[in-house]
Amino acid sequence: MAEEQRATAQHRAARREAAPDLREVTKGALLYEGKAKKVYRTNVPGALWIVFKDDATAFNGEKRSVLEGKGALANRISARLFALLTERGIPNHFLRLLSPTEQLVREVAILPLEVVVRNVAAGSLAKRLGLAEGAILPKPVVECYYKNDRLGDPLVNDDHIAVLSLATPQQLAQMRTLALAVNDALMPYLAQRGIRLIDFKLEFGVTAEGELLVADEISPDTCRFWDAASGEKLDKDRFRRDLGGVVEAYAEIWKRIGGDGGW
Amino acid sequence: MAEEQRATAQHRAARREAAPDLREVTKGALLYEGKAKKVYRTNVPGALWIVFKDDATAFNGEKRSVLEGKGALANRISARLFALLTERGIPNHFLRLLSPTEQLVREVAILPLEVVVRNVAAGSLAKRLGLAEGAILPKPVVECYYKNDRLGDPLVNDDHIAVLSLATPQQLAQMRTLALAVNDALMPYLAQRGIRLIDFKLEFGVTAEGELLVADEISPDTCRFWDAASGEKLDKDRFRRDLGGVVEAYAEIWKRIGGDGGW
Repeated sequence: MAEEQRATAQHRAARREAAPDLREVTKGALLYEGKAKKVYRTNVPGALWIVFKDDATAFNGEKRSVLEGKGALANRISARLFALLTERGIPNHFLRLLSPTEQLVREVAILPLEVVVRNVAAGSLAKRLGLAEGAILPKPVVECYYKNDRLGDPLVNDDHIAVLSLATPQQLAQMRTLALAVNDALMPYLAQRGIRLIDFKLEFGVTAEGELLVADEISPDTCRFWDAASGEKLDKDRFRRDLGGVVEAYAEIWKRIGGDGGW
Repeated sequence: MAEEQRATAQHRAARREAAPDLREVTKGALLYEGKAKKVYRTNVPGALWIVFKDDATAFNGEKRSVLEGKGALANRISARLFALLTERGIPNHFLRLLSPTEQLVREVAILPLEVVVRNVAAGSLAKRLGLAEGAILPKPVVECYYKNDRLGDPLVNDDHIAVLSLATPQQLAQMRTLALAVNDALMPYLAQRGIRLIDFKLEFGVTAEGELLVADEISPDTCRFWDAASGEKLDKDRFRRDLGGVVEAYAEIWKRIGGDGGW
């Protein structure tokens, strides 16, 4: 806990230091283009400019589509949820919104792990363990997947992570603690807004100073959100399963967490 | 460690108590027939009579064959290796050989987990992590698989094991400690006999008194053994991969660990 507090203090200090420059930030060279985002350098050292795209992909890139408006919704939902993490003292990469589809984040080296937290059985967990979709788990389940498209992002355990040096044991312990803290922050916040948090995927990154931050995005692309009353899926499963109304579902999430027409 | 010593002491005490009855043991009703073994009750409470069959199966039962002599070799190799564990104070189910194809073991409730220890990348680990077969792992990797044919024995992590109540956290920690102790016992013993221990699968069971024991078998059916000089496979991979000479390979292992024509 002392370490977590120190990390949080470091995070806040870094934010304060970076703050003066952020008002006049300008977009630099394209650093990386992923499936759902483009990442650019900026004139501010340690800050990156993210553009959320309208591209939707699933099943390791096998299924693709362009969904107009998805990028703007994912960007604003993610910004809102990362701001919540900052409020709760959970160190993360988010700095500020730049436009409906763009945000400024701290530069990190992303660790090649996807950390999944699950409250309810769905997706690959239901399949792996033979559980019915919707079965409530007696406690949150944390899983690590090796980010590797060629291998199909396999589930890995602590020993696999160690032998591949995907993270240090300290980083792994900290990621698990932070992932559960994110769950504890998001679950009641969303429940108050009629949204059940079924599961979500986090990515983590390390700053040049060695600070571990929650990174990437938190949006209907990376979470399972079910309507609390009807059980209706309000997330990327609508795209994966051809349920239609994908952008409408994302807009519903944005509306419920405070979207007000502006950005 | 204190707990492990206590468990070992309990195991020895249980063996001493059981010993007088074992001389006149008789086979009772069939309790269970598995892919490679039949298990019978006996006239001795807490003791079971195992018959090793010549049946070979792989890929979740999809591939089947009968290999004459395999049962007798697996039975005797397993008995020898379990005797080594007993020598080293590792609590296990083995009591004594009954015939070339039969042995007497302590009755346990088998936990629905396969615990795999790996020293060298092979099989599903090589595939999962994208490693070359034969790559030496910087430290032993322990994996747990949920024993469930319908689900294809999936890899599970500690949280999966907890939510399915497959083992208590204490049992899981003890299984991991014992699995690594088995590795430390087997590896040098086999190396002295020109055999590389690539990986192996253990099953564990709990006695009526709650004692956790290494159970099932330790044989070329459940281990990967490579000839130290040539790298030749001397285990069930010869069957899985249609390499031929399956029984001959098992006989070579038996010869190297002291087989002398008798049993």
